[in-house]
Amino acid sequence: MSATRDLLEVFDNEFPERDYLIEIVAPEFTSLCPKTGQPDFGTVTIRYNPNKKCVELKSLKFYLGSFRIEGIFYEHITNTILDDLVAVMKPRWMKVETSWNARGGITSKITSQYTASV
Amino acid sequence: MSATRDLLEVFDNEFPERDYLIEIVAPEFTSLCPKTGQPDFGTVTIRYNPNKKCVELKSLKFYLGSFRIEGIFYEHITNTILDDLVAVMKPRWMKVETSWNARGGITSKITSQYTASV
Amino acid sequence: MSATRDLLEVFDNEFPERDYLIEIVAPEFTSLCPKTGQPDFGTVTIRYNPNKKCVELKSLKFYLGSFRIEGIFYEHITNTILDDLVAVMKPRWMKVETSWNARGGITSKITSQYTASV
Amino acid sequence: MSATRDLLEVFDNEFPERDYLIEIVAPEFTSLCPKTGQPDFGTVTIRYNPNKKCVELKSLKFYLGSFRIEGIFYEHITNTILDDLVAVMKPRWMKVETSWNARGGITSKITSQYTASV
Amino acid sequence: MSATRDLLEVFDNEFPERDYLIEIVAPEFTSLCPKTGQPDFGTVTIRYNPNKKCVELKSLKFYLGSFRIEGIFYEHITNTILDDLVAVMKPRWMKVETSWNARGGITSKITSQYTASV
Amino acid sequence: MSATRDLLEVFDNEFPERDYLIEIVAPEFTSLCPKTGQPDFGTVTIRYNPNKKCVELKSLKFYLGSFRIEGIFYEHITNTILDDLVAVMKPRWMKVETSWNARGGITSKITSQYTASV
Amino acid sequence: MSATRDLLEVFDNEFPERDYLIEIVAPEFTSLCPKTGQPDFGTVTIRYNPNKKCVELKSLKFYLGSFRIEGIFYEHITNTILDDLVAVMKPRWMKVETSWNARGGITSKITSQYTASV
Amino acid sequence: MSATRDLLEVFDNEFPERDYLIEIVAPEFTSLCPKTGQPDFGTVTIRYNPNKKCVELKSLKFYLGSFRIEGIFYEHITNTILDDLVAVMKPRWMKVETSWNARGGITSKITSQYTASV
Amino acid sequence: MSATRDLLEVFDNEFPERDYLIEIVAPEFTSLCPKTGQPDFGTVTIRYNPNKKCVELKSLKFYLGSFRIEGIFYEHITNTILDDLVAVMKPRWMKVETSWNARGGITSKITSQYTASV
Amino acid sequence: MSATRDLLEVFDNEFPERDYLIEIVAPEFTSLCPKTGQPDFGTVTIRYNPNKKCVELKSLKFYLGSFRIEGIFYEHITNTILDDLVAVMKPRWMKVETSWNARGGITSKITSQYTASV
Repeated sequence: MSATRDLLEVFDNEFPERDYLIEIVAPEFTSLCPKTGQPDFGTVTIRYNPNKKCVELKSLKFYLGSFRIEGIFYEHITNTILDDLVAVMKPRWMKVETSWNARGGITSKITSQYTASV
Repeated sequence: MSATRDLLEVFDNEFPERDYLIEIVAPEFTSLCPKTGQPDFGTVTIRYNPNKKCVELKSLKFYLGSFRIEGIFYEHITNTILDDLVAVMKPRWMKVETSWNARGGITSKITSQYTASV
Repeated sequence: MSATRDLLEVFDNEFPERDYLIEIVAPEFTSLCPKTGQPDFGTVTIRYNPNKKCVELKSLKFYLGSFRIEGIFYEHITNTILDDLVAVMKPRWMKVETSWNARGGITSKITSQYTASV
Repeated sequence: MSATRDLLEVFDNEFPERDYLIEIVAPEFTSLCPKTGQPDFGTVTIRYNPNKKCVELKSLKFYLGSFRIEGIFYEHITNTILDDLVAVMKPRWMKVETSWNARGGITSKITSQYTASV
Repeated sequence: MSATRDLLEVFDNEFPERDYLIEIVAPEFTSLCPKTGQPDFGTVTIRYNPNKKCVELKSLKFYLGSFRIEGIFYEHITNTILDDLVAVMKPRWMKVETSWNARGGITSKITSQYTASV
Repeated sequence: MSATRDLLEVFDNEFPERDYLIEIVAPEFTSLCPKTGQPDFGTVTIRYNPNKKCVELKSLKFYLGSFRIEGIFYEHITNTILDDLVAVMKPRWMKVETSWNARGGITSKITSQYTASV
Repeated sequence: MSATRDLLEVFDNEFPERDYLIEIVAPEFTSLCPKTGQPDFGTVTIRYNPNKKCVELKSLKFYLGSFRIEGIFYEHITNTILDDLVAVMKPRWMKVETSWNARGGITSKITSQYTASV
Repeated sequence: MSATRDLLEVFDNEFPERDYLIEIVAPEFTSLCPKTGQPDFGTVTIRYNPNKKCVELKSLKFYLGSFRIEGIFYEHITNTILDDLVAVMKPRWMKVETSWNARGGITSKITSQYTASV
Repeated sequence: MSATRDLLEVFDNEFPERDYLIEIVAPEFTSLCPKTGQPDFGTVTIRYNPNKKCVELKSLKFYLGSFRIEGIFYEHITNTILDDLVAVMKPRWMKVETSWNARGGITSKITSQYTASV
Repeated sequence: MSATRDLLEVFDNEFPERDYLIEIVAPEFTSLCPKTGQPDFGTVTIRYNPNKKCVELKSLKFYLGSFRIEGIFYEHITNTILDDLVAVMKPRWMKVETSWNARGGITSKITSQYTASV
């Protein structure tokens, strides 16, 4: 759980009985490398099938912006964003993917997902 | 159900006994943000397997154009277009996808679908 | 059945015992809108698993060219091309897709397919 | 001069003695066809070398948005935007280009420019 | 001069004292090869600096469509379109470019231009 | 079986107990049309799961080059390359795809595959 | 001068008094390396301002095809094509560019041009 | 002059008598909007003809990174980076371009340049 | 097993109970051809579902860099990288793909994968 | 002058009286960073108007390959390659451009040129 989970706001899903897919792409993500303190840049993609709640986009923007001054590893960011969003929305299904600009000539991408137990 | 559902016109499917796929892409969609009143811009993609009726493209254009002065959320637009088209065409299967230009550096896409019960 | 089905010529498939796939893309297709008489432009894609016969490409070109002065709807063209090709080749499987240039800012694509009954 | 020229706000150019170039691209422009009342969609590109004033981007957005309910020809829009921006900013040089989505399979682009007399 | 020059309609240029550029791209052009009678497909691009008149886009579409049943060489089409448009608009400057789909694995492009004598 | 099958050389697969995939793309393929004698140009793609042998790339290049002066149909080339490679390598699985440059405005692609019987 | 210059046919330019530009792109060019005998593949682009004659495209195709069995260096091909075309057409201006697929990870492009002396 | 100009380090140009061009593209630039405090994202491109000194790339990275917590307008950033780099390198010529991600559907680009007086 | 396997360092996976995917793309890979000694260039893509350990990216970079002076075949490299990474990380699942720049006009790609036995 | 200039071989230009352009692109260039010893990757582009000599491509490949184990700065490489090629070919004009993969999120490009004094 991140320190800024409270920034996330949700609103009521008006079609809770229907399975549908929401995809959000945030290509302006930046955090700090916990080893060197240097900035990392990447794209965060969130896909989910909502249950009773949807995430409000402006609050999501502020939440993602809170990593700007955070020193944190790629794997940790990905799973933390997943955990935070699952906690506030309780979706039926969610997948978070982070893809990172080249460092030392190497790019990487982390994908983690959650499925609600029935 | 939108106030402008009546704009939609249908015509007879001449191959009703055959499963086939119609895909319609309307990249000039615009509506208003219900919070700020500012315009949103996106692309609406409709895919369906017709039953007895197909939607007439010019009437679809007028119907989609009626959202130009409508203040309405992304999720609501997507599911409303799906509901309206299912109501007037009663297809075997239909999927509606709306994908939206960046706001605050974030793009989003909503996909909802309908399958006729046998 | 179109008036110009006879333009289609076939030749013997030399590997009739083998399942394989032939894909033909004709991006220079044009017909007339039956309502306005104005030209429509699109791409016809044909995929099939041949049985005893394959379609000769030059004759296919002449056949597709015969729609140049024909006033006919998108759905009708797609299913008519499928019917004509199935009739002269009797393939194991065939899919015909037509994708159409924007009219009124809207593009569309029709896909129809045939599977031989065993 | 458009009825909404007053929406445009300017701010002081802090480097008035230096020739430099500002380019603004607004791909979400929409107006109405004065003949049919149907929406047109296009991209407005503005390039200028400022003198004492620069245009404020949010006010420009509102100004461009005011054409949403305006029935006006392509050539007129282009020259009107140029005239309005020249009037409020008095730049050393400015070029306005509007490029328009296909109508009847035809796209078009209008470019008009202004140079201050010395 | 083509037989269908009369299809072209013009309207008054409201900014006749100003040099500006109009570019029109028509990617759905088709004519017939005068040797084989087989269809050719290409894109016609027209750029001009108007004088007192501009060409009306719908009439241009009908004019270009009149080549659909015309057997005519690439070089001839290009220069004929230039001559016809110059005759009806008397622009300050005009350039017509036609670019043609591959025949025998070879594509080609013809560009011709006109400048009014002062 | 082609006359030049003997040009193909193989080497021992050092990981014979493991299922893995080798994909080879040769975009500089050319043969002759058996009807007109004119050159055809295309891309040959070979994918296989090796068994005891792999094909040596330089010998494959010479083998594919031997079609340069061969008058042969698309379907025939595809199945002949498949037969020759299967004969010399005895792979667990192989797929050969040939895709051909436009002739008369029409492109085509042939895909044939082989699976070893267990 | 190549041995196959005679394959080139010309026809009368119907607009000899006008400066205009003809561009021809032939992406299916292949010759042989004079050192190794192995095939080279490239694209030939010809641009010219005609005088009294234009080159006929089918004869150009046969002429370019005659290099298929020719062992010749890149620089030589480029200048030879230029010389042959200038000899048969006597254009006002001509530029020939050949661009070659990678060999040993290196691509290359040769451009030569001719201007008629006044 | 920015507060962090001192972060920039230079090294001796070993070819000071020769005019040549160095282009540096930094697509991971981010600063803060001075009005809203929200992050802006863009690409900084620097082109220069060095005189006696070149900028060291790692120090440039740290310098550009120092804008991460700075509230500053687009025009100001562009001209400040130009001023700082000119001050520490004294190049013969330099151009700085900043291009910015969409805000409110509008992108922008600022270009400023410096030429040493002889 | 390569001589440089020891260069690989791992760190603890903080989410060992969760299935997730890590993808690493290294487009700056180079080794030597064991026959000619000439350099080969390619891209290495690694995808894995971690168990208790993840590979540290900087150590991976040094490990991949150690092939720079190694004479080794494509198939061998691919399977060796897979074996080394499996040995140090013991992932639940891993796939290694190497794709190689054209040699003699032919590109190739090798894909090998590992699944932990339960 | 590099230690490996002698690897470069030249051959006689058969069209020495004619101005023409040769462009060579080598995208598989790699050297070592003189500070860290880590590999750098880039593309070398050479354009020249030959005089009496042209560079032989295979020898150029070996020459460029000799930088593989060389620790050398970007600016130095660019000007050294220019100096070596000018020394062995004495061209009328030559431009060398090196463009480098991202390091620390920053790419760069160096361009240097030579013109023979008349």
